[in-house]
Amino acid sequence: MMLDFSDLAVVDVHCHPYTRKDRLSADEWVDEVSFGGGSAEYLKAGGIAVDDAALETLQRVKRDTLYFRYMLRRLAEYFQVDATVAAVVEARNRAIADQGYAAYARSLHQAGRIETLIVDDGHPLPPVNLERFRAETGVEIVPIFRIEVLIQQLLDEDSGWAKFQRAYDEGIALALSEGGYKGLKSIIAYRTGLDIDPGSRSSDQGMIALEKIRRARGRGGDAIKNLRDHLFCRAIERCIDFDVPLQVHTGMGDWEVHLAACRPALLMELLRYPAYRACKVLLVHTGYPYQAEAGYIANVLPNIWCDLSEGLPFAGNAGKRIIAEVLEMAPPSRVCYGSDTYGTPEPFYTSALLGKQALAQALQDLIDDRFMTEAEARDIAKMIFSENARELYGI
Amino acid sequence: MMLDFSDLAVVDVHCHPYTRKDRLSADEWVDEVSFGGGSAEYLKAGGIAVDDAALETLQRVKRDTLYFRYMLRRLAEYFQVDATVAAVVEARNRAIADQGYAAYARSLHQAGRIETLIVDDGHPLPPVNLERFRAETGVEIVPIFRIEVLIQQLLDEDSGWAKFQRAYDEGIALALSEGGYKGLKSIIAYRTGLDIDPGSRSSDQGMIALEKIRRARGRGGDAIKNLRDHLFCRAIERCIDFDVPLQVHTGMGDWEVHLAACRPALLMELLRYPAYRACKVLLVHTGYPYQAEAGYIANVLPNIWCDLSEGLPFAGNAGKRIIAEVLEMAPPSRVCYGSDTYGTPEPFYTSALLGKQALAQALQDLIDDRFMTEAEARDIAKMIFSENARELYGI
Amino acid sequence: MMLDFSDLAVVDVHCHPYTRKDRLSADEWVDEVSFGGGSAEYLKAGGIAVDDAALETLQRVKRDTLYFRYMLRRLAEYFQVDATVAAVVEARNRAIADQGYAAYARSLHQAGRIETLIVDDGHPLPPVNLERFRAETGVEIVPIFRIEVLIQQLLDEDSGWAKFQRAYDEGIALALSEGGYKGLKSIIAYRTGLDIDPGSRSSDQGMIALEKIRRARGRGGDAIKNLRDHLFCRAIERCIDFDVPLQVHTGMGDWEVHLAACRPALLMELLRYPAYRACKVLLVHTGYPYQAEAGYIANVLPNIWCDLSEGLPFAGNAGKRIIAEVLEMAPPSRVCYGSDTYGTPEPFYTSALLGKQALAQALQDLIDDRFMTEAEARDIAKMIFSENARELYGI
Repeated sequence: MMLDFSDLAVVDVHCHPYTRKDRLSADEWVDEVSFGGGSAEYLKAGGIAVDDAALETLQRVKRDTLYFRYMLRRLAEYFQVDATVAAVVEARNRAIADQGYAAYARSLHQAGRIETLIVDDGHPLPPVNLERFRAETGVEIVPIFRIEVLIQQLLDEDSGWAKFQRAYDEGIALALSEGGYKGLKSIIAYRTGLDIDPGSRSSDQGMIALEKIRRARGRGGDAIKNLRDHLFCRAIERCIDFDVPLQVHTGMGDWEVHLAACRPALLMELLRYPAYRACKVLLVHTGYPYQAEAGYIANVLPNIWCDLSEGLPFAGNAGKRIIAEVLEMAPPSRVCYGSDTYGTPEPFYTSALLGKQALAQALQDLIDDRFMTEAEARDIAKMIFSENARELYGI
Repeated sequence: MMLDFSDLAVVDVHCHPYTRKDRLSADEWVDEVSFGGGSAEYLKAGGIAVDDAALETLQRVKRDTLYFRYMLRRLAEYFQVDATVAAVVEARNRAIADQGYAAYARSLHQAGRIETLIVDDGHPLPPVNLERFRAETGVEIVPIFRIEVLIQQLLDEDSGWAKFQRAYDEGIALALSEGGYKGLKSIIAYRTGLDIDPGSRSSDQGMIALEKIRRARGRGGDAIKNLRDHLFCRAIERCIDFDVPLQVHTGMGDWEVHLAACRPALLMELLRYPAYRACKVLLVHTGYPYQAEAGYIANVLPNIWCDLSEGLPFAGNAGKRIIAEVLEMAPPSRVCYGSDTYGTPEPFYTSALLGKQALAQALQDLIDDRFMTEAEARDIAKMIFSENARELYGI
Repeated sequence: MMLDFSDLAVVDVHCHPYTRKDRLSADEWVDEVSFGGGSAEYLKAGGIAVDDAALETLQRVKRDTLYFRYMLRRLAEYFQVDATVAAVVEARNRAIADQGYAAYARSLHQAGRIETLIVDDGHPLPPVNLERFRAETGVEIVPIFRIEVLIQQLLDEDSGWAKFQRAYDEGIALALSEGGYKGLKSIIAYRTGLDIDPGSRSSDQGMIALEKIRRARGRGGDAIKNLRDHLFCRAIERCIDFDVPLQVHTGMGDWEVHLAACRPALLMELLRYPAYRACKVLLVHTGYPYQAEAGYIANVLPNIWCDLSEGLPFAGNAGKRIIAEVLEMAPPSRVCYGSDTYGTPEPFYTSALLGKQALAQALQDLIDDRFMTEAEARDIAKMIFSENARELYGI
């Protein structure tokens, strides 16, 4: 008899808000909810003709992944229709038309027992109106603030360092004190990589780097990396001041991430640097496919958490493996469920299903291998699905 | 009841031709079909005495791996003899003597349902005569052209860049237009590593690098890397011109490969570079043991395929794990069976057996975990064993 | 019916001596036997207040890992008490009071069938008296010599290169010839990383590097790395002279290790360098979580062994996975059980239990997947638990 966690409440520690889409064609829906597989824009930029055959291939490949197959199958069960894209999309369009968008979204969230979404509203841009998102989904929304959105705004202005620095600090402080944001998020992994020099704290480094960027006419060398490293360290210090967690992207992303620069191991020197030890850091995506590195860091350093999102659900059958490898070393009290889903309500629901299935399998193995009792397994499942995130974010 | 794919036709997307060896001693056969474990030449170059004890240890260790144990056991079943090296070698020698070499090779290929071999004839050197190989094995032979063989020939000549460049382009064009080659292959991972600078396209880079190599008397610095990076980019462009795929070695090789320079993740920046997006790239060996990186790249970039060879069969029990991890993100339509076998017909057969067993196990787990139906699993198996490679190579 | 290796004798190829601790409080015992989770000192250095709440969190997290849960549960069975820290600590304190320390330690070692400990006495420092340790544990003690302890002593003196070099060579020679040490050990991974330049053999490199360190006043650049690389190469040559193995730390360590600098793959270029091929090298911790890299190296290079310690037991449920991944390529005759345990007798016992459980599971899978017979599995288990280490160390 398998463990069954379907009744457990879910806090999704990392995901993105979305705007309502009442009616989608089959292809539009696939583009909205699938992961990877390229796009017409990607092909065009590579000088590849985007004809009907190319568009058909894009659709075929997107529908081909294990992630998509699982999602489609679970939604077919939910709507009690055939497991085809056409039938599922028709069913969700009809349900929205019949019930209204908010009722539809709520029923999916409730079916997954999703109570709280901790959302990074730095994607999509321009930001989704969170009041409306909250009203439509009927779940608690806890926003976190992506520093790279602010950094880009400041880079786009023609300010000097004094102004840049003040605007950066004030922007963060405002977000955390009055903006309702409960923590910060960084995607520096996408920009200049995770090999951040811990000694980048000095404001001089920021000043010199910005000076080079403003004057460089393309010859700034490492200036942009030095600036981002400095601003990252500065963000950690703000998190310590405000006693809020920092989410850091690690591991997989989309096609723009340079995977080799995103290993969690690259962060280790920074995370243990004395000046940053007081900051609670959540390793977003637990560094998939380098999840064992993230688990290791969460073991040997005391203020590190692992977020299971993106690998779970987008890496399909990886869910059980990710959980098992993270738990090899990470204390269960340092692991949080997340989905990184976006776009429409459907993947939020199927991700929760997959997460519960994967955790049940991983913990069942641990019971069988005499690491814990069934009661301990259930306690751990509660911690991972909601309690750890609630404690970390004080919600 | 397990899935059974023993009836499925096999296209081996990456392997090597071989010359006939009618009669081998037990030790010779072990040297021919085993993987790793060192050699007398390796020890001698390290100043190690190669006495009888050393030779005995070499043999013992080669016979010790899981790969070898599996192969021996399956061949013993095939020949209906004891699972000892002596009995199996005696049986294969006798079978060749009785049936003739060609009939023997054909019967093994037919037993594995192997229909087509896509062969890199850059190993062994001098190249095997493919006409004779085709006649002896009775399977379809599709050759691919290893650019490093041509590069070495051109380096050995005393030409300047104008001649080098012309001979390189013409050599590739001739191979693809008249030589019967259906694509290119690169082992740059073995030479200067996969961190290829995508901006190496300019012919100037090739000229400057060759100039340094010709004059350097050992002080060329990065010249050889710059030259190889340039020639690699040039090869991609030829693949786009001729609309043929490029096979790129990633991950494990033999003792000469520097594993740290062979991670598929290192290739990502190059593969998404706009100028190269139209090239179909097969990540050979799917980067074992970094197969999850290869699967990830095959998900987020639209023109990337994964070849399962070498890890399967030489990493023994890894087969199921490699497939499961690749399929975490790679669309099944982007995954091809390959063996990287060489030397004699026997490993081609046992590799196909192991591949079918491993894929059956991996897909059974996916059925059990509700990712697909049994019918979908069988469709995927057909794609991986033959259809994807046939579509990719137009055969 | 599962394989059962509980009767097999154990040689622990990598662990640490300890001093007797007759009576421990629950918290003290947890600090002694747990792994990771930070410490009051770590927090203080980061400016974090170490109040009661912080201390309670440290304890809670340390008790939370799978490693700790497994150990506690097995000890509760051993003592026939409840699986709580209080009950287990009370039971071990009482047993020591009743039986005496030596009898207690011996009974635990005997329960695990632990016959021999190959100990690195470079941790803890000052070194544990091995005569007393031998008397108290009743097992055979085989010490190995950690070169970094000697290097630190020599760095602390104000000697020039001539004296440094002589003292280094003589210190090693004395340890191996008269000190009873059966091999060397290096933790260069912790210091300057495993990307050791194989060309560091020249004594000139040592001299120039030491000169810079002595004069640098903080501006020595790569001098310390160059010195350590040189001394590492020198240690390999001593191992060849004395025909003893070298243990090299790879992969996981504690919070001080920079994981990114510890991948076994980084060592590959050095290990195959002709001058070092005659040295038998044991990859300590088999590079967890990069164990597949270690297994690969042990396959393609003939004088490399893998030690399973630290991942097993400290990575909890990883044991089975580590073994399975190492055996993908490493010949079973090149794999040794180790624990890396320390502190008190209890973890030595539970690590042996976990190792036997994990190996039984891993080998059962290999039988089921037709890689070997049950008899072969048992032979391999004997090799891994004792025979390989006995052969390697000549004990």
